[in-house]
Amino acid sequence: MSVTLPQGFSAAGTTAGLKASGRPDVAVVANLGPSQAAAAVFTTNRVFAAPVKWSREAVADGQLAAVVLNSGGANACTGAAGYADSVATASRLADRLGAVVDNIAVCSTGLIGVRLPMDKLLPGVDAACDSLSTDGGAGAAEAIMTTDTVSKQAGVTVDGWSVGGMAKGAGMLAPGLATMLVVLTTDAVVDAAALDGALRRACRVSFDRADSDGCMSTNDTVILMSSGASGVTPEPAAFVDALTDVCVDLARQLIADAEGASHEISIDVVGAASERDAEVVGREIARSNLFKCAIFGGDPNWGRVLSAIGVTDAAFDADDLDVSFNGVKVCRGGQIGEDRSLVDLSGRQVRVTVDLHAGSDSATILTNDLTYDYVKENAEYST
Amino acid sequence: MSVTLPQGFSAAGTTAGLKASGRPDVAVVANLGPSQAAAAVFTTNRVFAAPVKWSREAVADGQLAAVVLNSGGANACTGAAGYADSVATASRLADRLGAVVDNIAVCSTGLIGVRLPMDKLLPGVDAACDSLSTDGGAGAAEAIMTTDTVSKQAGVTVDGWSVGGMAKGAGMLAPGLATMLVVLTTDAVVDAAALDGALRRACRVSFDRADSDGCMSTNDTVILMSSGASGVTPEPAAFVDALTDVCVDLARQLIADAEGASHEISIDVVGAASERDAEVVGREIARSNLFKCAIFGGDPNWGRVLSAIGVTDAAFDADDLDVSFNGVKVCRGGQIGEDRSLVDLSGRQVRVTVDLHAGSDSATILTNDLTYDYVKENAEYST
Repeated sequence: MSVTLPQGFSAAGTTAGLKASGRPDVAVVANLGPSQAAAAVFTTNRVFAAPVKWSREAVADGQLAAVVLNSGGANACTGAAGYADSVATASRLADRLGAVVDNIAVCSTGLIGVRLPMDKLLPGVDAACDSLSTDGGAGAAEAIMTTDTVSKQAGVTVDGWSVGGMAKGAGMLAPGLATMLVVLTTDAVVDAAALDGALRRACRVSFDRADSDGCMSTNDTVILMSSGASGVTPEPAAFVDALTDVCVDLARQLIADAEGASHEISIDVVGAASERDAEVVGREIARSNLFKCAIFGGDPNWGRVLSAIGVTDAAFDADDLDVSFNGVKVCRGGQIGEDRSLVDLSGRQVRVTVDLHAGSDSATILTNDLTYDYVKENAEYST
Repeated sequence: MSVTLPQGFSAAGTTAGLKASGRPDVAVVANLGPSQAAAAVFTTNRVFAAPVKWSREAVADGQLAAVVLNSGGANACTGAAGYADSVATASRLADRLGAVVDNIAVCSTGLIGVRLPMDKLLPGVDAACDSLSTDGGAGAAEAIMTTDTVSKQAGVTVDGWSVGGMAKGAGMLAPGLATMLVVLTTDAVVDAAALDGALRRACRVSFDRADSDGCMSTNDTVILMSSGASGVTPEPAAFVDALTDVCVDLARQLIADAEGASHEISIDVVGAASERDAEVVGREIARSNLFKCAIFGGDPNWGRVLSAIGVTDAAFDADDLDVSFNGVKVCRGGQIGEDRSLVDLSGRQVRVTVDLHAGSDSATILTNDLTYDYVKENAEYST
C-alpha cells in the first residue's frame, strides 16, 4: 500500500535536520526498471518553486530514474541560487544512483522564501540512498509530511500489476492541484505517453477536486513512474481506473487530514448542464468562508449555498435549485424545504447535494470546514 | 453627516420587533423634493432577494420618492410569497406618504430563506412614517444594523449642496458590492442619468473594492436620491468627487467594523499594466485565507502574497515582484528582501503594497484578517 507496492521500486526516508522538529525530512523513490517511463503534472501557479522548474524539464522526455523530496523548505521565491540548489540536489542523487541528472525529479515543501540548508540536505540525500529498500515506502511517506498529522499511502493490485502512491499536504490545499506532493508508481508496462494521459485523467477527478482552502501552492507536483517490472501490459481503461482509485484514495486522505478541519465535506453537484458547470458550482461553494463556518457551527445554512451558486456562470434557474444536507432537502425549488432541524451535522462526514435541474452531468468537490484550529495553524505557521 | 444632511430629506428608524434582540429594525428615508431623481446599483448575484427584484423595477424610471429598509430578515429565497411581501411593504409606505408605489424602493437584510413577519413589519412602517424628521438620519442608520457594532454615516458639504449617506454591513462583504445596504442622498440638482453615471463611478472605486470575506450577498443595494432642494447644479466632476468621498468613507467604515476582524488591511497594487489587473491581483490576495490568517498572526508572510498573485492572469514577471508590509519591502524581485522581523503588524491598520513592475496603473482593495472571532460569528449566526 505504498510507492514500493509495485515491483521495481525502492524508497527511503531519512532525517537530514531541515525541520526544527527533528522529524524525517528527506525521501527518495528510485525506479529500478526495466522501464523508466514517467509523467508528471505540476502547479499552474505562475509563481512556482525552483524544484518545479527543474522537474518540469527533467520529466519532459518521459523518463525518470528517481525522485528526491524534502520537507522543511519549499525552495520557492529563492531565485537563481535556489534553482542551483535544486540542480545540486538532483546531481547528488544522480551520482549516488549512477543515473543521468536529467532523469532525477526534485520536490520540496515547506515555507516559501527560505533557502534550503544544503549542508544538511545533501548528506540527507546520501543517507536516504544508503537505506533504499523495496519496502521503504512507509518511511518515504513519513519524510514528506509537513503539517500532516498522518502519512498518506495507497495502492491497488490488479491481475499481476499494481499501482502505489504516497502524498503529503494539509494546507494551501486548492484548485488545480491541492498543495501537495504525490509520487505514484506502477509495475505495469505503460509507455510515457499513456502514463501522461492516464495521469491527467486521474488527477482531474481526484486531486483537482480536492479544495480545502482555495489557496494554490507554488510547489504542487504529482509524479507517476512505471518500472514495467510486472511484465504485464494492462488494458488502458483498466490502468486509468486503478490509477484513479489510488488518486481518489489519496485525495480523500488529504482532505481528511486538512489543517484544523473538524468536518470532511463532500459537495455533490448533480443535474448540471456540463461537468464543468458542476465543478464550478461545487468549487464556489467549497470556497465560501460563510458556508465553511456554518458547517463548523453545525448549521445547514442553505442560504449561503445559494448565494455561492449565484455568483457562478453555470446554467441554472434560481427557482429550480434544490439543496440537501446529509440527505435532508432543506431547500426545494430555491425556497424553504424540509425543516432544517432535521439535519444532523454532528458527525465528521458531511454530504451536501446540489441539484441544478439543468442537465444530467455531475461532479463532486471535497472540502473542509473553516475552524478555529485552521486559523490558529495558519496564523502561527511561520512564526 | 447622514442621509438627512442634505436638504429635502426626512428619515426615521423604529423597532418593529423583527429582531430577537429588540433593537431598531425598520428605517424609512423619504425624499421631500422638489426632484425625485434616483439611481441604484444592486448585487450581481444571480440568486437575488425579493426586495432587489422589486427595487430594480422601482428605480428603472429614475424616480424614487422613498426607501424602506428592514433588518431582521433578508427576504431572499422566499419565492412568490416573499416577493408579495416586498410589494406589500412598498404599498404601505406609498399609502402613508401619498406616493406612487412604483416610486418606493425596498431593502432587506438578515437571514436568507426566512419569511418576514408582515404583521410586525407593516406596523413598523407606519411607526417610522409617524416619526419621520429632517434630523432622523442617525435613527435610520441604527435601524439597518445587523451584526454591525456601530452605525455607519457620512456626509460632505460643497458650495451650498451636500451628499449624505448611511450603510450597514459587516459580513458576507464581498465583490461587486459588499453585503450591504447603502442609501445616499443629495440636495444638488442632478438628473437621473447623471446620478446613475456618478453612482457607478463612485461604487467602482469604493464598495466594489471592499472585500472582507469574498462572499457576495443576495441583497446588496446602493440607492442614490436627489431632492434638488439646494437649487444648485454642481459641476459633474465635483459631484462625482463628493459622492466618491462619501462612498469611500462608508466603505472604510464597513471594513473597519467587519465581523470578527482584528486588522483593517489596505492592499495597494501599483505598477500594473491596467487598473483591472491591479484590481484582480488585490482581490486575489484579499481572498487568500492563508494570507488573512497570517495577518491575524502578525506574520508578514509574503510567500502567501506571491502564491495568490500567481493564480491571476495579470501581466507580471514573477522575478520582478516587490511586496512591502507597512513599508518594509520583505520581497524584492520575487525573492527574499528586507528582514521580515522589521515589520510590525501589531497595529490595527495594515498596508500591503505590491509592485507588479508591469505598467503604471494601480488600485486599492480593502479587506480584513481571518480570525477566531470571524469563525465564531459565522459559525453561530443562525443558530
